[in-house]
Amino acid sequence: MEKIPVGILGATGMVGQQYITLLNDHPWFEVRYAAASPRSAGKKYEEAVAGRWHLAKTYAPHVGGLIVEDANDVNRAIAAFKKGDCSFVFSALEMGKDETRSLEEQYAAAGIPVISNASAHRWTPDVPVLIAEVNPDHADIIPVQKKARGWDRGFIAVKPNCSIQSYMAPIHALTKAGYAAQRIIVTTLQAVSGAGYPGVPSLDMIDNIVPYIGGEEEKSEEEPLKIFGSIENGVFKNSELPKISAHCNRVPVTDGHFACVSLEFGVKKPASMEEIIKIWAAYRGLPQEVDLPMAPKQPVIYREENNRPQPRKDRDTDKAMAVVIGRLRPCNVFDIRFAAFSHNTVRGAAGGGILNAELLKYKGYLG
Amino acid sequence: MEKIPVGILGATGMVGQQYITLLNDHPWFEVRYAAASPRSAGKKYEEAVAGRWHLAKTYAPHVGGLIVEDANDVNRAIAAFKKGDCSFVFSALEMGKDETRSLEEQYAAAGIPVISNASAHRWTPDVPVLIAEVNPDHADIIPVQKKARGWDRGFIAVKPNCSIQSYMAPIHALTKAGYAAQRIIVTTLQAVSGAGYPGVPSLDMIDNIVPYIGGEEEKSEEEPLKIFGSIENGVFKNSELPKISAHCNRVPVTDGHFACVSLEFGVKKPASMEEIIKIWAAYRGLPQEVDLPMAPKQPVIYREENNRPQPRKDRDTDKAMAVVIGRLRPCNVFDIRFAAFSHNTVRGAAGGGILNAELLKYKGYLG
Amino acid sequence: MEKIPVGILGATGMVGQQYITLLNDHPWFEVRYAAASPRSAGKKYEEAVAGRWHLAKTYAPHVGGLIVEDANDVNRAIAAFKKGDCSFVFSALEMGKDETRSLEEQYAAAGIPVISNASAHRWTPDVPVLIAEVNPDHADIIPVQKKARGWDRGFIAVKPNCSIQSYMAPIHALTKAGYAAQRIIVTTLQAVSGAGYPGVPSLDMIDNIVPYIGGEEEKSEEEPLKIFGSIENGVFKNSELPKISAHCNRVPVTDGHFACVSLEFGVKKPASMEEIIKIWAAYRGLPQEVDLPMAPKQPVIYREENNRPQPRKDRDTDKAMAVVIGRLRPCNVFDIRFAAFSHNTVRGAAGGGILNAELLKYKGYLG
Amino acid sequence: MEKIPVGILGATGMVGQQYITLLNDHPWFEVRYAAASPRSAGKKYEEAVAGRWHLAKTYAPHVGGLIVEDANDVNRAIAAFKKGDCSFVFSALEMGKDETRSLEEQYAAAGIPVISNASAHRWTPDVPVLIAEVNPDHADIIPVQKKARGWDRGFIAVKPNCSIQSYMAPIHALTKAGYAAQRIIVTTLQAVSGAGYPGVPSLDMIDNIVPYIGGEEEKSEEEPLKIFGSIENGVFKNSELPKISAHCNRVPVTDGHFACVSLEFGVKKPASMEEIIKIWAAYRGLPQEVDLPMAPKQPVIYREENNRPQPRKDRDTDKAMAVVIGRLRPCNVFDIRFAAFSHNTVRGAAGGGILNAELLKYKGYLG
Repeated sequence: MEKIPVGILGATGMVGQQYITLLNDHPWFEVRYAAASPRSAGKKYEEAVAGRWHLAKTYAPHVGGLIVEDANDVNRAIAAFKKGDCSFVFSALEMGKDETRSLEEQYAAAGIPVISNASAHRWTPDVPVLIAEVNPDHADIIPVQKKARGWDRGFIAVKPNCSIQSYMAPIHALTKAGYAAQRIIVTTLQAVSGAGYPGVPSLDMIDNIVPYIGGEEEKSEEEPLKIFGSIENGVFKNSELPKISAHCNRVPVTDGHFACVSLEFGVKKPASMEEIIKIWAAYRGLPQEVDLPMAPKQPVIYREENNRPQPRKDRDTDKAMAVVIGRLRPCNVFDIRFAAFSHNTVRGAAGGGILNAELLKYKGYLG
Repeated sequence: MEKIPVGILGATGMVGQQYITLLNDHPWFEVRYAAASPRSAGKKYEEAVAGRWHLAKTYAPHVGGLIVEDANDVNRAIAAFKKGDCSFVFSALEMGKDETRSLEEQYAAAGIPVISNASAHRWTPDVPVLIAEVNPDHADIIPVQKKARGWDRGFIAVKPNCSIQSYMAPIHALTKAGYAAQRIIVTTLQAVSGAGYPGVPSLDMIDNIVPYIGGEEEKSEEEPLKIFGSIENGVFKNSELPKISAHCNRVPVTDGHFACVSLEFGVKKPASMEEIIKIWAAYRGLPQEVDLPMAPKQPVIYREENNRPQPRKDRDTDKAMAVVIGRLRPCNVFDIRFAAFSHNTVRGAAGGGILNAELLKYKGYLG
Repeated sequence: MEKIPVGILGATGMVGQQYITLLNDHPWFEVRYAAASPRSAGKKYEEAVAGRWHLAKTYAPHVGGLIVEDANDVNRAIAAFKKGDCSFVFSALEMGKDETRSLEEQYAAAGIPVISNASAHRWTPDVPVLIAEVNPDHADIIPVQKKARGWDRGFIAVKPNCSIQSYMAPIHALTKAGYAAQRIIVTTLQAVSGAGYPGVPSLDMIDNIVPYIGGEEEKSEEEPLKIFGSIENGVFKNSELPKISAHCNRVPVTDGHFACVSLEFGVKKPASMEEIIKIWAAYRGLPQEVDLPMAPKQPVIYREENNRPQPRKDRDTDKAMAVVIGRLRPCNVFDIRFAAFSHNTVRGAAGGGILNAELLKYKGYLG
Repeated sequence: MEKIPVGILGATGMVGQQYITLLNDHPWFEVRYAAASPRSAGKKYEEAVAGRWHLAKTYAPHVGGLIVEDANDVNRAIAAFKKGDCSFVFSALEMGKDETRSLEEQYAAAGIPVISNASAHRWTPDVPVLIAEVNPDHADIIPVQKKARGWDRGFIAVKPNCSIQSYMAPIHALTKAGYAAQRIIVTTLQAVSGAGYPGVPSLDMIDNIVPYIGGEEEKSEEEPLKIFGSIENGVFKNSELPKISAHCNRVPVTDGHFACVSLEFGVKKPASMEEIIKIWAAYRGLPQEVDLPMAPKQPVIYREENNRPQPRKDRDTDKAMAVVIGRLRPCNVFDIRFAAFSHNTVRGAAGGGILNAELLKYKGYLG
């Protein structure tokens, strides 16, 4: 099978670098188009990232030689599309919300599907917010979106905020087993890579924590309601539950967001901690069933040790795509509590985006 | 006024060092007796701590010259008491629970009051667990304790676990104002100094967090019930509320325990966030009213900035004895949520112990 | 004695904040004028630093109420001078080199002496680079400078780079005792506060070191030659020795620059390590002799423990103004080696600037 | 080819775990014997390391099921040898020097070759200290050793201290090209994993550095002389040069030792920095020539960026076996200076040990 040529918007930034690296040996997709800010445009990719490459792994040699295009200039992408170099794009744009929203729409309107990491379109009524294991059926809004917008080939699909990725899958597993969560109080300990580069100053992170991340708590509380919602008559209907209250903190960790979750079920409650652990161990989604390349074998891994998950030891589990959880125990106030963890720039960003693209390819939307 | 001579049990350990340093210039107390494990016994204090002094501040010169005694040998303390060198002791013993319990009783039986940091006696029915601003009246169990035990001069008073110190005072302020907490879900981010020295290995704390501290969650949930309880007929009666559920984590911070608190009031609820902030600003306890030397001027300080409290910036507020809080906002699930912080080895250990001793002196229990 | 009113240029930045804090209770100087970038101009100081105050200590209440002026507008300072609010200024400007050079000259030309932290004028031939203990006599260039420039009251005096402060005093002590250094190889481990705020990204400092600080090695090698030089016929003549080779690294430490020094003496060498330690212990400079307020009692403190100095334990020694050294031992290649340490934003920046001002006041240059 | 069965002594410790993990998929060797302290003996390996596994990667399933033997009981190894489960052992023993020396000799005497990580035998006159690229010919002492000791099959070969691994290969490359180093002053910034587990307390590593590692400077200065020495008449003759002076520091980094090197050549000096970089780029050793499985393709990698090497970005280069260097520039005092880096528990410990075993297998000593 010939690989599908893909483009990266925001290719020189933190998440863009992660996309490029994760696609080094991808069996389906190949990076053939890289776009970034005007400052990088016209340079070779290897020149554009010289001195600001943040990852331990490096990019594939052929990517180093790509000429970076101006992400604001959709015509460049159209030309690349026509040359067969850009079938769809991953958007890791780091500009303002309005600019991002408009630019992503321009790409879609030009016939180039946009799989986005940005938050700009998460609340656009006809744009799905996908976690491939949790709500793959939300992709079915895409024909509605295309029709309403008059787009023939292009569309927009996004992923949710990285802060919620560590607990959405475990909660979904329980919901699927019949134990829907009603109320959740969650405290997150989030890694600095979530703020991009340069991001959080080291003076704020050495021997310190910062109990505030702008907009993060709101996203953590609201996005799950869309993800757990349903499509009714071609329109998303948000779920009303669970009610979530989030405390989001920045901690001195490079990669991996951690969460302490207290959860109250509805009327139906699991019989025991053991039952819950079994539900998590058995949990599989569509990506696992159809064996998507980026999918972890087991989306939720429960560790029995009393001091796990830990960022440094658990972040790279199964291509950094598995959610690792632990410390399940009864909650004194709600029903259960546990600790949850996932890699924020892989599962929570570029890896999650790639998995979404694989899902959309599987579903036929990337034709 | 001549200073009262005091002894430190466990004088060479982390908390012992903190006691020694905080008492360098104390207006009421003077360290004249230092006891530790047999390994240190017989050495000068300055020799015993050479190469394992962990604080930035140092000890007073006269303490450096003290000969360290064996803390297991109560007779040494009795001799010091008779010489006028040890009117009471601060216990920062780091031995097993049973040994500590028994040894502290031996000192008390020998006529030497014990103001303890150790957890051994926290659930002993006739021993008060004191936070000087919160339950100073619990000291009134001391005559009952002495009588029941047949002790004439000695007694035991302890302080609670360091993990709860950052939120007990704010919650007490609200309770006093008529707004008792009914349910609390709290996640703590605790400093490594709480584990003593050598304590937490650096391999566990660089680029990492550890979501488990043995026994800490139980203490965080249960000790407040004794502290908020009352003395009825010479016996402590625990409070039934608030129900607390705690998630305790170790984070790469040297000093200062941080907590994210979600709180549900009972039937009576404050009218607004502003009312709560006013209650906190106005909150004072007996230590403030009678101006005890170690008491912070304002026990609870609310910071308006949206990114405070922070360990590195707030830990030393008012002799490291003030609780610093911030980020009060409505909770999506309970009534309110906020972030709370206090210095774990000062307010939460040695400083809190000294304040308790000042309180007991004021109340006449230290002769 | 009435306090001398002083101004701070760059008052809202990292070093400016440090100046303000260190002058909170200064016996001679009082901050009555604060200037910064146009962005801050017109705001109250407390508003200008809200949310970007980086220190644990805070500013004096009267400073909080000062209206911040535009540092580029020298007329504002002239007006303040006339009102008796700004007798001289501390410059902590963070603009480009040429701009800083020109602006500092404008203040001096306007009759306002400038005690500067900036590097702009370090190589100006008639500007002294002062370490108060090491080359206080270099202040004697000031009359020459004033005459040549036609300035009546104003002048410029600067301090050297923070990276060399930890080893200049120990080396000077040896030089003074007759043991001049001939060759030095030094590796520095420098704190992130040296890069200002936001400064070094936390992604570069968690579990990492960065072996490069722009311009730092050159400054570390060249500035000592001016400081160890002499004034001949009203002109500075640089010293030819010691030859210095510097490796400068950024490490995950908040405050305090550390240096590993290997040193070769000239023909005359100390008899023993003991002799050197005695020289350091006895070392005093003019600031100590005339008891300047900001001067540490002992400028160089040698610690006998084999694992000191350490940033967290030694940075605050004697108002953070003492240089703390340790590990003196023979060098396998040169004569001796040792570890040296000093606080970079206090001794190496604002504290050193204040000490310089005290020296200049003592010498009669500040009216 | 059937895999050679190997044993690990000290299999549960930090370096032992690293050995086990690196051998998970080794083409030549397979772990079939694991020995540790009596405390672990008798347990399954997976039980023995439960809760104290320090690595992100895990062990192969078949190793988890091995019954851990008592490393002190050589008879157990002999039995395993007879059963075909232990052809030779990797020693990662963490006991005292004398005990280790004696125990390793017992294994060798029993016919079981010992490839050791321990320092005990580094100065034993007939034991080679091998860096596979640098002195592979030192293995030729083994027949002498066996004969002198009367051992038929067993022998002992060791590797040097981890602190010198980052600069030995670059220096050897220059020596091989005709430019021998005469004098070296080096400052190391060493990772905490070098101290094992629990190792360095986090209170010493958060916002701090420790300028002392017991015995490390002596090893760094002396071991290179044996490695650069020659075998003359069946006896090692140490090299006299280079003279090395080392400053060894512990810094808050998990893995990877970093070194700042100033180097003086003898009479013959390279013409330029470019020539040196070419020498490093072209440098290959026997492991590369015969393509040993654990050998990095290029043992010394020079990075052109001015801020590399960096621990977090460079530690895993080429199976964590490559030495990564940068910042080559003239030294103001000696001839050149540069920054060097290698992974201390892989290249500097278990990976280096495995590479040594591969070399010895290639040379026929593990027949």
